[in-house]
Amino acid sequence: MKINVYSIEKKNSDYYTKIIENQKKMIQKYTKVEEIMIFNKKISSAQNRDAIMAKESYSEAFIPKMNGYNVALHPTGKEMDSFEFSENFANIVTLNFFIAGAYGFDEQFLKKCDKVISLSKLTFSHKIAKVILFEQIFRALSIVNNHPYHK
Amino acid sequence: MKINVYSIEKKNSDYYTKIIENQKKMIQKYTKVEEIMIFNKKISSAQNRDAIMAKESYSEAFIPKMNGYNVALHPTGKEMDSFEFSENFANIVTLNFFIAGAYGFDEQFLKKCDKVISLSKLTFSHKIAKVILFEQIFRALSIVNNHPYHK
Repeated sequence: MKINVYSIEKKNSDYYTKIIENQKKMIQKYTKVEEIMIFNKKISSAQNRDAIMAKESYSEAFIPKMNGYNVALHPTGKEMDSFEFSENFANIVTLNFFIAGAYGFDEQFLKKCDKVISLSKLTFSHKIAKVILFEQIFRALSIVNNHPYHK
Repeated sequence: MKINVYSIEKKNSDYYTKIIENQKKMIQKYTKVEEIMIFNKKISSAQNRDAIMAKESYSEAFIPKMNGYNVALHPTGKEMDSFEFSENFANIVTLNFFIAGAYGFDEQFLKKCDKVISLSKLTFSHKIAKVILFEQIFRALSIVNNHPYHK
């Protein structure tokens, strides 16, 4: 199994990225995981124009990466507990998570995904959403592998 | 207004605590905020015995602190979006948030609180829950003060 976490953001280094580095090491005890941050001139100029173009630029960046089971994080998605979340990890070879930039996803992209999930009713910053996602991935793998972390 | 965030944990220093230090600085632009971590021998030995005694030891530590509007974080609490969360901040002098230790709260403590909230259906680690809570406090104060952070 391989897990990919795609997000629209510039690469940077702060306390959140250090936490995610540790989380990735923990996940790698169970399976391969890769964090792919995408940002380019097209996204930058689209975001400076309007929300519709920004969303289109995210889709354009992400669609070529949709080569497995594709899960988008979006406020309108399905909320689930950590056990239901872990059900995404059964019998899947490549599991891709997509986190949009500041303007969110357009409906067309969401329709292309196998699942659209929401982490909470609350609005989270991009950085916190990613830390939550990586922790849930580790928690899910602990559940799937019967390790007591999740209790 | 004064905001207190109480939790059952040993004081420590890691990337999460550094993030919370920054979050507290941001919150202090709006109002006073204090983070109070409680841990003692009684809690330690209760946690080594059983869940009921652990929960009682948390209540015993927190009850003397209940001197304002008291909000407990608990999985059975009410989920809300960031705007609803910000409604907790209206016309309140002292706002206390309580985060339990590993065994959660007993029903008696929850009944004493003015509100019991849940951050998500997902299970979060203690550390992530605290980072989420501090971000929501800042977001709520931005909403209440009409600052664009929350958008």
